[in-house]
Amino acid sequence: MPADSPLLLVLELVGIFVFALSGGLVAVRKHLDIFGVLVLAGTTGLGGGFLRDVLIDATPPTALADWRYLLVPVAAGLTTFRFHPTLGRMERLVNIFDAAGLGLFCVTGALKALDHGLGPVPAALMGMVTGIGGGMARDLLAGRVPVVFSSELYATPALAGAAWAVLAQRQGWDVWVVALPGVAVCFGWRVLAIMRNWRAPVPSGPASV
Amino acid sequence: MPADSPLLLVLELVGIFVFALSGGLVAVRKHLDIFGVLVLAGTTGLGGGFLRDVLIDATPPTALADWRYLLVPVAAGLTTFRFHPTLGRMERLVNIFDAAGLGLFCVTGALKALDHGLGPVPAALMGMVTGIGGGMARDLLAGRVPVVFSSELYATPALAGAAWAVLAQRQGWDVWVVALPGVAVCFGWRVLAIMRNWRAPVPSGPASV
Amino acid sequence: MPADSPLLLVLELVGIFVFALSGGLVAVRKHLDIFGVLVLAGTTGLGGGFLRDVLIDATPPTALADWRYLLVPVAAGLTTFRFHPTLGRMERLVNIFDAAGLGLFCVTGALKALDHGLGPVPAALMGMVTGIGGGMARDLLAGRVPVVFSSELYATPALAGAAWAVLAQRQGWDVWVVALPGVAVCFGWRVLAIMRNWRAPVPSGPASV
Repeated sequence: MPADSPLLLVLELVGIFVFALSGGLVAVRKHLDIFGVLVLAGTTGLGGGFLRDVLIDATPPTALADWRYLLVPVAAGLTTFRFHPTLGRMERLVNIFDAAGLGLFCVTGALKALDHGLGPVPAALMGMVTGIGGGMARDLLAGRVPVVFSSELYATPALAGAAWAVLAQRQGWDVWVVALPGVAVCFGWRVLAIMRNWRAPVPSGPASV
Repeated sequence: MPADSPLLLVLELVGIFVFALSGGLVAVRKHLDIFGVLVLAGTTGLGGGFLRDVLIDATPPTALADWRYLLVPVAAGLTTFRFHPTLGRMERLVNIFDAAGLGLFCVTGALKALDHGLGPVPAALMGMVTGIGGGMARDLLAGRVPVVFSSELYATPALAGAAWAVLAQRQGWDVWVVALPGVAVCFGWRVLAIMRNWRAPVPSGPASV
Repeated sequence: MPADSPLLLVLELVGIFVFALSGGLVAVRKHLDIFGVLVLAGTTGLGGGFLRDVLIDATPPTALADWRYLLVPVAAGLTTFRFHPTLGRMERLVNIFDAAGLGLFCVTGALKALDHGLGPVPAALMGMVTGIGGGMARDLLAGRVPVVFSSELYATPALAGAAWAVLAQRQGWDVWVVALPGVAVCFGWRVLAIMRNWRAPVPSGPASV
């Protein structure tokens, strides 16, 4: 699956679209205007990739070199603006798609970082950043503590998927063996976390102030 | 109007100064100390350009290569620190200058992005980012949802001015025909929005939670 | 003291560890889960250097090229997660170490910026950014106004130490004469500020609204 395969492009655009929907929904709930909806949609869909590209020196980011990457979050933002009551009721379905986007982004992000010469540990970290960065930027702009810090298990599946991709890629395995299990691990773990309401451990004992 | 024209430099520094004043005023209202006033002034004046330069790979940003770009927000911060009651009463005037800064930044930002090889759509987006990025960073640091999301019409005029600049530049038109109408569209639209209290549309219907 | 001296590496890692502890403590007090603790630890320990490296075009940042830089904040995060009640009671000691980290980072940050061709004023500013950037990112992610804006004197000592390093380096003085007084000025000033509760001046008069 080379980086310019049409399938990969479509999958990436779908991932961006679904991430952008979640950004638009947050904006609607914060009573932002249409511009806020569009910016939160764009930030959530593209923010993780931007952050990765700036850190690994792959600027300008792909999304600034290919207009399709910009069109997709605009479409998602307008969809949210118009149909947010329906989308809000379908939140579970949106979350499943979001898990698919997370699985895809953590793998493609890690592989891109390896491509740019990063070592295995930083590359896996960059894969996780690609998956969770957009949602963190969304929450910062919307004035809330990132949900990835205190909600359902979200980042660990992304790190696991990215780690698989890095390890398999360094074995020189076929690209499908690199990508598919990585996406599947992240997606499956995340969906189980949603369904069973798994959460990450919290510190024990009272916090000293 | 080449990028190193003295007129353009003066206009840019004036724009930075006025943006920085607005950052300083927010800091004063948040009861920050003098350091907070200076940092919010600097972030607001320079943040949009920093963000653009990092994304289009024009680092280090101009402001780090030319001390005058750093001196101006310091001067604006100290001015705010000392004279904030007067400035606060002149807020309408400050807003008019801010509109001028917005008009200038959206055009120069878009042209710089074109110069660095971006396509027309991303270049117009980078122009808007140059105009609104500083204010967004200011609001993040001050712990409030960016006013650009939910207040008067602000980003759309910047995008319109940037779009004009991109289109005219690609026609190969004279630099004044590229720059002046772009600045004028953004400035005029923004001033009308202030005067008539125009706002962007908000989503209709209740937000599902 | 060349950039790859073992002593400097150890000092940097200690500085990152202590900064990361402060990030972990904030996460515990915000009731974040273990992932939040690790991310705030990593952001606080590495954020200032990341911000500097992105701005001066030294990407990918050192921390992404050397796994020890990533291991240290993970260790600090796990330490905080497990021992936060003890660490919370030792806060004064943590603050003293934090002052040492600040002193070290402002000097190394300024020297790295000079190395990458920045002028003296921007280089001193980048030194300060290296020292305070991680704590600012920590506070943004934790949803509070950066304490550096409104708490004890913090940024001025960092700027002073960075300024010394820049001036001495440009005189061509020996590396110890460049580094040690810079670290000492920042550390000493900061420790005095903690002990005597020095604060930066705040704007006088009521803020107009």
